[in-house]
Amino acid sequence: MSKDRLIYLPLGGAGEVGMNAYVFGYGPKGRERLILVDLGVTFSDMASSPGVDLIMPDLRWLEERRDRLEAIIITHAHEDHVGAVGQLWHKLRVPVYARDFTARIARLKMQDAGQDPEQVITVGKAPETLELGPFRVQFFPVAHSLPEASGVVIDTPAGRVVHSGDFKADRTPGVGEPHDPEMLAQIGRSGVKALLCDSTNVMNTHAGRSEATLTAPIAQLMRDARGMVVATTFASNVARLKTLAVAAHEAGRSVCLMGRAMLRMTQVATEAGILKDFPPTISPEAAKDVPREKLLLIVTGSQGEGRAASAQLARGTYMGLNMKEGDTFLFSSMTIPGNEREVGRVVNAFARMGVDVLDNSARLYHVSGHANRPDLEAMHDLIQPQMLIPVHGEHRMLHEHAKLAIARGMQSMVVPNGAVVDLTGAAPVLVDEVETGRVYLDGSRMIGAMDGIVRDRIRMAIGGHVFVTLILDEDDELLGDPWAEIVGLRPTGKGGQPLNEIIEEELAQYLSRAGAKTMADDDKLNDGLRRVVRQVTMEEIGKKPEVTIVVSRLMND
Amino acid sequence: MSKDRLIYLPLGGAGEVGMNAYVFGYGPKGRERLILVDLGVTFSDMASSPGVDLIMPDLRWLEERRDRLEAIIITHAHEDHVGAVGQLWHKLRVPVYARDFTARIARLKMQDAGQDPEQVITVGKAPETLELGPFRVQFFPVAHSLPEASGVVIDTPAGRVVHSGDFKADRTPGVGEPHDPEMLAQIGRSGVKALLCDSTNVMNTHAGRSEATLTAPIAQLMRDARGMVVATTFASNVARLKTLAVAAHEAGRSVCLMGRAMLRMTQVATEAGILKDFPPTISPEAAKDVPREKLLLIVTGSQGEGRAASAQLARGTYMGLNMKEGDTFLFSSMTIPGNEREVGRVVNAFARMGVDVLDNSARLYHVSGHANRPDLEAMHDLIQPQMLIPVHGEHRMLHEHAKLAIARGMQSMVVPNGAVVDLTGAAPVLVDEVETGRVYLDGSRMIGAMDGIVRDRIRMAIGGHVFVTLILDEDDELLGDPWAEIVGLRPTGKGGQPLNEIIEEELAQYLSRAGAKTMADDDKLNDGLRRVVRQVTMEEIGKKPEVTIVVSRLMND
Repeated sequence: MSKDRLIYLPLGGAGEVGMNAYVFGYGPKGRERLILVDLGVTFSDMASSPGVDLIMPDLRWLEERRDRLEAIIITHAHEDHVGAVGQLWHKLRVPVYARDFTARIARLKMQDAGQDPEQVITVGKAPETLELGPFRVQFFPVAHSLPEASGVVIDTPAGRVVHSGDFKADRTPGVGEPHDPEMLAQIGRSGVKALLCDSTNVMNTHAGRSEATLTAPIAQLMRDARGMVVATTFASNVARLKTLAVAAHEAGRSVCLMGRAMLRMTQVATEAGILKDFPPTISPEAAKDVPREKLLLIVTGSQGEGRAASAQLARGTYMGLNMKEGDTFLFSSMTIPGNEREVGRVVNAFARMGVDVLDNSARLYHVSGHANRPDLEAMHDLIQPQMLIPVHGEHRMLHEHAKLAIARGMQSMVVPNGAVVDLTGAAPVLVDEVETGRVYLDGSRMIGAMDGIVRDRIRMAIGGHVFVTLILDEDDELLGDPWAEIVGLRPTGKGGQPLNEIIEEELAQYLSRAGAKTMADDDKLNDGLRRVVRQVTMEEIGKKPEVTIVVSRLMND
Repeated sequence: MSKDRLIYLPLGGAGEVGMNAYVFGYGPKGRERLILVDLGVTFSDMASSPGVDLIMPDLRWLEERRDRLEAIIITHAHEDHVGAVGQLWHKLRVPVYARDFTARIARLKMQDAGQDPEQVITVGKAPETLELGPFRVQFFPVAHSLPEASGVVIDTPAGRVVHSGDFKADRTPGVGEPHDPEMLAQIGRSGVKALLCDSTNVMNTHAGRSEATLTAPIAQLMRDARGMVVATTFASNVARLKTLAVAAHEAGRSVCLMGRAMLRMTQVATEAGILKDFPPTISPEAAKDVPREKLLLIVTGSQGEGRAASAQLARGTYMGLNMKEGDTFLFSSMTIPGNEREVGRVVNAFARMGVDVLDNSARLYHVSGHANRPDLEAMHDLIQPQMLIPVHGEHRMLHEHAKLAIARGMQSMVVPNGAVVDLTGAAPVLVDEVETGRVYLDGSRMIGAMDGIVRDRIRMAIGGHVFVTLILDEDDELLGDPWAEIVGLRPTGKGGQPLNEIIEEELAQYLSRAGAKTMADDDKLNDGLRRVVRQVTMEEIGKKPEVTIVVSRLMND
């Protein structure tokens, strides 16, 4: 009877770990009312996005349908879920709902981007219910690596959808709500059409470990270490900050938090009433007067980020403090794939100073915030969905999770970014594919990933840049000589002559031979000059540079 | 009585895995006769060396003492040991000694670089002995991940030095000589002053596994796989190529080798008589006609290199072949730290096609070529050196290895690149530090790592490039308007006006206000203009670009 349908469309996060943005729709085809779950960022890298500050999902599809969008729901305060709220809110202009801690972080994002923080509305966990058009949405607590992480139950006339959020099956997570199988079973009991489920750790076949298993090894480390201990972890991992601080405190060490993100996170967690019984901390100023063996610094920079506290300590002094032989540096963290080189640089710098560097290779000092395969299976069993849609993972993880679900008797489908899937029936059906992609925050402004700007930068980084200027008079005749400037290239050719002079000579020769037609035609002239530059440069130094040509034509006034 | 001394100086490889280059000297201070062991390369990356083709040790110190250099010794044919021989030989111009397989590869390097391959001289293993000034050098076979890997015994009047080369304690390495504890003990028996020892896997506390353990799992994979199997490993790992090919052959699969390095390595190994009983192979052309389930491709690109066969298959078709759902891709390899992102890209592309991707995470399909800690300890015990100098490792590994050696009763010292250590006495003594560093092969020419060329490229990659041209007449007055060209930046400012126009306006204003002194002074003018460009760009789009200014002054003829 009803022609209404329930659709799902990931605009980010499906095929990557990062920039999560999941759209749900319900209503007649093309007139569905919509909600967006999460609006996160991805981090840039020098190989594919040099100079870019943040990567975000391209929301054009949603922006064009803004009148149908009811709300933005944020599951938790990690950057890949909340990071783009400030920068992209003005494109959507609907209320943002989140639980208290997450909402506080989201408001800071709005403020940073010059948006109104009042657009972010705090919602309590279930049974508190948001009525959003045809959707009834409840937040349910899950254990994760930061406080107040949540999944969401989305009830629609076509049935119940459960979005797991990022979760782990940890019954003793330290800070934040424990994994609660009873509650999850309760959610499943009323019948669930679709479970959208975290896929990050589907490849890991071991049962996950609890945050609580770290207490003893970290306490021992704080007692046994000879000199200063410096520990890094994600600033948002408030439970870990507490585990580290308590262990240090009990071992007679003063605790000093360093790095902007660390201070911001602990401040917000304190304001939200989450960070209770945290040991007293001292300022970096005060830390300078504490004997090294009585000190723990907790610093930012677990991923080797160049501007974070850890990298600054690796280079020398940070806020008046520095590391020495006999000190210990602890990575209470994992290295996100792709950051190995940056982390390695920090590790090696410390090793050169004689600092003992400890990481999680013996599995003593870190646990993941994501459910491993056995815990995912337990989640499937608790929620008992008709269909399972893997989210939050690279393609390989999504495929593995879908395979797993099918083997366990569920309907499943890999739904990559941009795929519109109809969830109304007994199995997911691909009904459309929409254009999606990435946009970059570059400095203070947005640019498109595909508009050639970053491509030009990469070309300059690989090939160097040759810049050619020449002046033509009213009769298209060369006035003076052409000039070539080179940046990022060897200044001399194979014979030792300056490369720019060699290029200039070849350009002059080319121009002397060029016909009147070429000289009058900007495009032709540019092409010809560019070809000459690339040919000469290849011949002289074996490089094909990026070439920019500026032809100035003097006109009669 | 004698004032002669035995010195050791790493120019590369100590503090990094890559570009090995170890100098030994014997004689009166400042007049030591020298030998160089290994001359390898390191690979570049986009973050720190974009566009660079290869990274090599800076040999200036050795070049200035070329008259004292007896020879270059190459332990084995991996790129980080032999890769720079062709490009840097002309700086040293002494004979290059290596065993047969290594010598063949070294000759190809010489040829590629336009040098005389006859400078490479083949040497047999011990007891064959090279007399090089005060040095008597013997090659001894070690097990590693390619054929004819060797350590060297260097006998000097001050005692015996043993350089382990890259080794693993594998008694069944498949192809190549097995680990031979008897022989090593024999070397140690006559008394060893110093062991320079591979440190790559010192962090790994498990005993190493043999190449032979891979035979069964790989054979099973070849039998069980439904579709085509494509496997990648280092081309030089000839034992692995054989393990893969034999397993496939026995499972009724035809074997096709793909990728330039793969063909080159197997050809050299065949010519050297090392690759015996290799199953017949077919051409890519012929492979097209073989049913998928009867085919194994062995391809280059285990590190996700963009131009290698694996990455091309990930993007689509390579030599007429492509991957499909149901096929299997096997990484019979490990990912070198820093390459995770590139490998991840390939893995995800295959996953998207529905290809099953297998790697070594279950430790079934790859073993390392380097000795783990227990095997290093066994090596110490066999050689029984007075002192142990860790080589071939990042700082962290060198420190760990030195700590281990000291705990086990040896003298030890971390000797980083550029440190000159006197080995004559009972313990190593730091006697000098020399300037060392890296040089880059960039296209067809060498550039210095520190000469600013690559720094400029990185700056353009991060900040974009603004190029300003202006013309001044004979009286230092502006002729026409200043032009600004932007590359790698958002073309419009915050108000939507073209960025280059905004810059040009600000430049014109600046020039109209500039005094005659500034206008006459190129440096002052450049500084002022650069500051204006960076200020405006920061204000408009939040970026600080690289700026190049060209001021053309028209002169009276």
